[in-house]
Amino acid sequence: MKKPLILVTNDDGISAKGIRSLVEAIRDFGEIVIVAPDKPQSGMGHAITINQPLRLNKSDLFNGIEAYSCSGTPVDCVKLGIFEVLKRKPDLLLSGINHGENTSTNVLYSGTMSAAVEGAMEGIPSIGFSLCDFDSDADFSASKEIIKTILTKIKDAPIPSGICYNINIPMLPITEIKGINVVRQALAYWEDKFDKRMDQFGKPYYWLTGDFGNHDPGENTDLEAIKNGYVTIVPTQFDLTAFSELEKLKLTFNK
Amino acid sequence: MKKPLILVTNDDGISAKGIRSLVEAIRDFGEIVIVAPDKPQSGMGHAITINQPLRLNKSDLFNGIEAYSCSGTPVDCVKLGIFEVLKRKPDLLLSGINHGENTSTNVLYSGTMSAAVEGAMEGIPSIGFSLCDFDSDADFSASKEIIKTILTKIKDAPIPSGICYNINIPMLPITEIKGINVVRQALAYWEDKFDKRMDQFGKPYYWLTGDFGNHDPGENTDLEAIKNGYVTIVPTQFDLTAFSELEKLKLTFNK
Repeated sequence: MKKPLILVTNDDGISAKGIRSLVEAIRDFGEIVIVAPDKPQSGMGHAITINQPLRLNKSDLFNGIEAYSCSGTPVDCVKLGIFEVLKRKPDLLLSGINHGENTSTNVLYSGTMSAAVEGAMEGIPSIGFSLCDFDSDADFSASKEIIKTILTKIKDAPIPSGICYNINIPMLPITEIKGINVVRQALAYWEDKFDKRMDQFGKPYYWLTGDFGNHDPGENTDLEAIKNGYVTIVPTQFDLTAFSELEKLKLTFNK
Repeated sequence: MKKPLILVTNDDGISAKGIRSLVEAIRDFGEIVIVAPDKPQSGMGHAITINQPLRLNKSDLFNGIEAYSCSGTPVDCVKLGIFEVLKRKPDLLLSGINHGENTSTNVLYSGTMSAAVEGAMEGIPSIGFSLCDFDSDADFSASKEIIKTILTKIKDAPIPSGICYNINIPMLPITEIKGINVVRQALAYWEDKFDKRMDQFGKPYYWLTGDFGNHDPGENTDLEAIKNGYVTIVPTQFDLTAFSELEKLKLTFNK
């Protein structure tokens, strides 16, 4: 049987430990091609580059595996990977391993997850992986085991079309991880603050900061499952229509 | 009755005709404060600026209305607007008028709509407006009438919490617009292509291009309604959980 073609990207940049760990984990699962940002692109969400051109350069960071660094966003990397590098759709798209969690509404800000969502929009089975540890030298050894388990499982149970998986891995040794839990994203969001400082000319500038608050009292959420030591899988869609509101709103607006 | 406080932003930048037209349309509806990008930010999706600081400068482009240009993305503008400029949540957040449609899956790439989605996440009634005309000198006169109609309607029928409205206006004179239609987003996406060129050093660079293809044979979509001359409203949510897949996937992954 022919090995699947796997496109790999991330948002922390091509030199991050996370993407190297992902490639190490999946080496035996298929033919790998990497197209990843040439610099950190965290927080870029689903941004694409339309007002300037993109650069694509060969990278030798992956010991003989075909790899390219790209000047654009994670979603740019997916598009360039499919339409310029591979010239066809890969069998699988994997994004990560992100340094830091992508739970709850953070999915919308996350370049890692936006790459996976873009894959789903292109009809490619896609997964974003995140480790709940923002350290640039985080320990990805448990993550690698989890990823192997997941890829083995999806051989028999393919990812449904129209969605991708958002997988978060708790910051625990493999022996302390309780299992895998399919959950919904929690209703949580940032209580933003700005750190206002003055530059050398006395003009203000602002750093975005804040606290992430869980406002979800319900069960079966990603935040709760991670706290309890589980790997979480949120099936993630790209249709933003709020179907439950359609009929009521028609009464207000349609003539 | 106290006038509502309205925060206005866009993604085409503070000097675009679209945002000026929006402000002209809503002048009588409330107290207006504008925080908009200092340059075009189309295609920035839900990107936020976390690796560099943000600048915020007073603007006198709006004849006495409090306005600021911001060095960041549309979502940065919303966050700075709420937490640094207003220091409280506005009663309404309006984004646009975008030069060009934001139908179907383009919602994910759109800075205009991501600003409205961010507003919804913050619990603020939020609307993104787009005119289906990419011309920088587009005619917004029909759009202004439509916006007044919409704002009058939502006085009696408040926007449900947890969603925002994605409103697209066809490129037609007001007399030829058939009405307003509440619809779902079409399942359509870009067939991307890259225009590969060579720079003066013989090195390649790539412009993202492509064709937008409608792959949705169903009824009641934004693309179909616009084609038929209707203003479209898609109630738009920010929870990406694919709830319909949860139970089945638990059988595969949960122990």
